[in-house]
Amino acid sequence: MTLEHALPSIPALDEVAMDAARRHLDRLTKPPGSLGRLEELVVLLAGITGRVDAPLGHRRIVLAAGDHGVTAQHVSAYPSGVTAQMVGNFVAGGAAINALAASIGATVTVVDVGVAGPLPPVTDRGAIGGRLVLARLRDGTADLSEGPAMSRRDAVSAIEVGLRVVEDVRERERLDVLGVGEMGIGNTTSASAIVAAFTGLPADRVTGRGTGVDDATLRHKVRIVERALEANHPDPGDPIGTLAALGGFEVAALVGLIVGGAAARVPVILDGFITGAAALVADALCPAIAGHLIASHRSVEAGHAAVLERLALRPLLDLDLRLGEGTGAALAMPLLVAAGRMRDQMATFDSASVAGPAG
Amino acid sequence: MTLEHALPSIPALDEVAMDAARRHLDRLTKPPGSLGRLEELVVLLAGITGRVDAPLGHRRIVLAAGDHGVTAQHVSAYPSGVTAQMVGNFVAGGAAINALAASIGATVTVVDVGVAGPLPPVTDRGAIGGRLVLARLRDGTADLSEGPAMSRRDAVSAIEVGLRVVEDVRERERLDVLGVGEMGIGNTTSASAIVAAFTGLPADRVTGRGTGVDDATLRHKVRIVERALEANHPDPGDPIGTLAALGGFEVAALVGLIVGGAAARVPVILDGFITGAAALVADALCPAIAGHLIASHRSVEAGHAAVLERLALRPLLDLDLRLGEGTGAALAMPLLVAAGRMRDQMATFDSASVAGPAG
Repeated sequence: MTLEHALPSIPALDEVAMDAARRHLDRLTKPPGSLGRLEELVVLLAGITGRVDAPLGHRRIVLAAGDHGVTAQHVSAYPSGVTAQMVGNFVAGGAAINALAASIGATVTVVDVGVAGPLPPVTDRGAIGGRLVLARLRDGTADLSEGPAMSRRDAVSAIEVGLRVVEDVRERERLDVLGVGEMGIGNTTSASAIVAAFTGLPADRVTGRGTGVDDATLRHKVRIVERALEANHPDPGDPIGTLAALGGFEVAALVGLIVGGAAARVPVILDGFITGAAALVADALCPAIAGHLIASHRSVEAGHAAVLERLALRPLLDLDLRLGEGTGAALAMPLLVAAGRMRDQMATFDSASVAGPAG
Repeated sequence: MTLEHALPSIPALDEVAMDAARRHLDRLTKPPGSLGRLEELVVLLAGITGRVDAPLGHRRIVLAAGDHGVTAQHVSAYPSGVTAQMVGNFVAGGAAINALAASIGATVTVVDVGVAGPLPPVTDRGAIGGRLVLARLRDGTADLSEGPAMSRRDAVSAIEVGLRVVEDVRERERLDVLGVGEMGIGNTTSASAIVAAFTGLPADRVTGRGTGVDDATLRHKVRIVERALEANHPDPGDPIGTLAALGGFEVAALVGLIVGGAAARVPVILDGFITGAAALVADALCPAIAGHLIASHRSVEAGHAAVLERLALRPLLDLDLRLGEGTGAALAMPLLVAAGRMRDQMATFDSASVAGPAG
């Protein structure tokens, strides 16, 4: 599917299904609304999928990976080569996301959309390893602090890689919940520039420590983000141009995963700051999309709160995470699964012969 | 085990195991500390259990149930008979906690320690139903707004019911994680009085809507809590006396479950406001105990934040829950399980040939 075809196909939330879900919840043996955000999730899942009994059994985390020319400016605590090494680790099953996805019975797919240099040979560590999709467009982006990170055409192509991955997964098997994540040394710099462009906030408000840089590197990183904005003059009214100027290939692929999920009525769980930046691009392309997104957690990364506010999303978790890889999305999945079990397995006041509120 | 024997047997956290856990975490393929509170959980589990590889496979929710004489004062939106009806629902498997416990592979035990009136005949709804422990001391408490809810001797007996349940469970099978919960129409009134007694906060600061009472009933409920404090003059330096004056049988049993879990080096996950009030009693009996407790969530019930602050516990979740039954404890369990899988399954930088931080 092309981006041009996907965007108009994103449906509004199904209000009829949401009302039916609310009525169902109020018949269950608990004070109305007493399960708080778990009940909201049940209603939202109905709105996204159009089904009160939206299934949740087939859960997948898709990670997009790409490298960033801006690492030449020494903005990260880790060398650029770690991106490819971690792709190998995802496939081998040794990364945090493999353990956390396995913990909730989710499968992992890794998409190389723009990693630089060869991927390492992979040693399979068993069932929790990820499936690798080879869809590399370039060996990393150009340095966004000196000009556009990529061409508009490459940005659209990378988005369409994300769209195609959603289609391919859905052709092979059911996809009930899609968690999105990423890997790319240097991509918090890219995301900070994107968030600054779309929110209008100054660089120092939306730039954080990423993998854990020191104070001096953080100050330098803020200047690099400022330089990227000066070099590219991004126009937030032109989402593709802004993405091309400031984005990574993996950020663009995430836009495609988000749009593709929403178009297919699949609930999409965002991870942290980078996936949030991608959601800002998707929201600029199609404002109806934010309603299809579930914010898994509030990252400690400085600009994430601004992203969530802009998208009007309230995160489910606040666990001081700053890893990425979709780890927050995986950690939020059990709440969806629990919400579904509550919805499906609880007795009603009538069936259990429990009295409702007095008077 | 008697309370007198259990209290001195509560160990300090194992600092050696905690240090070993920290060293292990920093070898795994992620920036140090980037999994935030998940990493803290791994360290805490090591401290509680004395094992870096603390197992988490055997998870149980124990619900204590009791009735409250103070319901004669019309403090709840539900009639008192709902307590017994819900005990039936827990055993039959139709309550929220059954669905949420099943969702994380936890078993459910229900302890009737002071329900009023006969339990309903139970229709078994299959594997997710709870095991029932019949340990009733009385048919509910006396009205705490007119004098002590129970005798000191009954308070100690109810605590020892909780201790015995932990022992019995551990004699039958492994117990790696213990979530505690409760059912008792009227018990937010009891808990509010207990929290006021231990924190010194005024009744209107620690009294909330419970199952969902209206404004007029809330004002009335505050007056009933004030009357209970005036009628009993609880002395927070005398935890058993305070518990006897203001507690429910299920609150006392929760104190025993918490003490028994801590003494056995089993991580105890608190639920919401009522279990928090019980934790305040346990903390007054033995201050070392708070270190063994995991706060699952921040309830919307008014006094819960004060409880968490007093115990210096930061909750894992904030999901607007106000149901009780151990539902918050069950919802937090996947985070422990995920933390354990991360700890056990991730590759190290060396084993995965991933470069560490530069410089």
